[in-house]
Amino acid sequence: MSLVVIGTVAFDALETPFGKTDKIIGGAATYIGLSASYSLKPVKLVAVVGDDFPQSDILLLQEHGVDTEGLQIKEGEKSFFWSGKYANDLNSRETLVTELNVLADFDPVLPDSYQDCKYLMLGNLTPQIQRLVIQRLVNRPKLIVMDTMNFWMDIALDELLTTIEMVDVLSINDEEARQLSGEYSLVKAAKKILGMGPKFLIIKKGEHGALLFHKNQIFFAPALPLEEVFDPTGAGDTFAGGFIGHLAATDDISFENMKRAVIHGSAMASFCVEKFGTERLLNLTKEEIAAREKQFGELVRVEETPA
Amino acid sequence: MSLVVIGTVAFDALETPFGKTDKIIGGAATYIGLSASYSLKPVKLVAVVGDDFPQSDILLLQEHGVDTEGLQIKEGEKSFFWSGKYANDLNSRETLVTELNVLADFDPVLPDSYQDCKYLMLGNLTPQIQRLVIQRLVNRPKLIVMDTMNFWMDIALDELLTTIEMVDVLSINDEEARQLSGEYSLVKAAKKILGMGPKFLIIKKGEHGALLFHKNQIFFAPALPLEEVFDPTGAGDTFAGGFIGHLAATDDISFENMKRAVIHGSAMASFCVEKFGTERLLNLTKEEIAAREKQFGELVRVEETPA
Repeated sequence: MSLVVIGTVAFDALETPFGKTDKIIGGAATYIGLSASYSLKPVKLVAVVGDDFPQSDILLLQEHGVDTEGLQIKEGEKSFFWSGKYANDLNSRETLVTELNVLADFDPVLPDSYQDCKYLMLGNLTPQIQRLVIQRLVNRPKLIVMDTMNFWMDIALDELLTTIEMVDVLSINDEEARQLSGEYSLVKAAKKILGMGPKFLIIKKGEHGALLFHKNQIFFAPALPLEEVFDPTGAGDTFAGGFIGHLAATDDISFENMKRAVIHGSAMASFCVEKFGTERLLNLTKEEIAAREKQFGELVRVEETPA
Repeated sequence: MSLVVIGTVAFDALETPFGKTDKIIGGAATYIGLSASYSLKPVKLVAVVGDDFPQSDILLLQEHGVDTEGLQIKEGEKSFFWSGKYANDLNSRETLVTELNVLADFDPVLPDSYQDCKYLMLGNLTPQIQRLVIQRLVNRPKLIVMDTMNFWMDIALDELLTTIEMVDVLSINDEEARQLSGEYSLVKAAKKILGMGPKFLIIKKGEHGALLFHKNQIFFAPALPLEEVFDPTGAGDTFAGGFIGHLAATDDISFENMKRAVIHGSAMASFCVEKFGTERLLNLTKEEIAAREKQFGELVRVEETPA
């Protein structure tokens, strides 16, 4: 059931209506790895950082069951850095700084111990690099899940489409689904995107939940109505980590189990947004997670009409 | 189980990305009445139009089981007219024309035959007029549901709050809930609004579904992902009509039955948006409605994890 995750490990500086942070640990693979680690360990990480990345943060990942053998540390280089500011409604954000640094010429190296990969999570990255990871695995994984974003649709659409064709599950948000398909209706968008290769499509709608499409089937998972949303950073990645973590741990890729994986991912994401950055993901209990998943069921449960 | 509906009966001229209409029948009470008529008949209407309102449209309402004894026709005056244009995403709209006409001095008259009212639906109108209807009923109805909008929060907040305090269920959209409460989080907003009088609160989120709040309970009904959304006009009113129609027909105001009413209202609204104006509401079958309600159940159904 080996799970391999590729993506960014980075510094983020965040500003929300509720406060701001200095440089804290961030990056897609960080959120995915931490989130998936609650379903199974180890989570085998493929990523790159500079020598400015604190050993304590690497230890933090390891303590949570993230195998960092595939984490390259580039001497004399700096880690990827992203800084962003959220609007008051937390639904849009402005990028203040993007410094690619080590990411500019990232060449993903897979340790031999990663070749047993059965579940592969491609976190948001250049589609060429995502594809390289698939190609560098001797055997095709049982399931490949890919996350991406509008940025690659803007500047590298052909490369993106080539990678999308190779994966089993694509995870994007509603605006990205519209952009990728040219269709406003998400149902029509999903039909087009499922024609591009993936057998499953997840459309993330943030505070409005997530849709899972497969053939002509649609499943909808609400987002939990929360009293406090503090910082949405990493919510989509945390969702993806929970999703593939559940699938890898149960080793069941039926549509029915994917529904449960969507609920689990949604539950993990609902924790993520309660605090800044990765903070809330660092010490969850199995009980807290199970209780939250139960809330998702209760939120939509309707008793059958009495006969 | 007598159901009384008050609201506007009007002319609308609509423009969406998919086309535009001349003056067609519209108004909150029209959509509410037509929608509720699929649950029970008659729906007793209280409204006012001018003598420009076609007899054929009044007949249309009557044929669908709407009792128009409480529909005043003002000789020499013109009907309320609203014209609006939707943005490309159909999520925002611009008002082009609002002519109050007969609505400016609407004095709602309740025929004696309406005094058996057990379920009262206050469609969007001046809160003073909504309140007058409650006061003119000799006996307080078993359930009063009120719909309103941000316009009254802007220009008549005190009047609005006085009326809100008198009702059992308030139905508003997410932005209105935020405005009314001053809280961004819908959970916090709901707590504040439930402190203003109503025992139940419905927050409509358009294509993102609807939330029902009661004490510390929350129920969420998704909106059905649709291939074609043609015209959102009247969707909220159609929802409200389906909601109170179901409650009146079943005469059960438990939280559990309110959930079913929300699903039924959502199903009715999902039909409404498929065509311009009231068109799709004019000839639905019980089978179509039941099939659509079933889709709502299937959309969120997850089988229990095998033990």
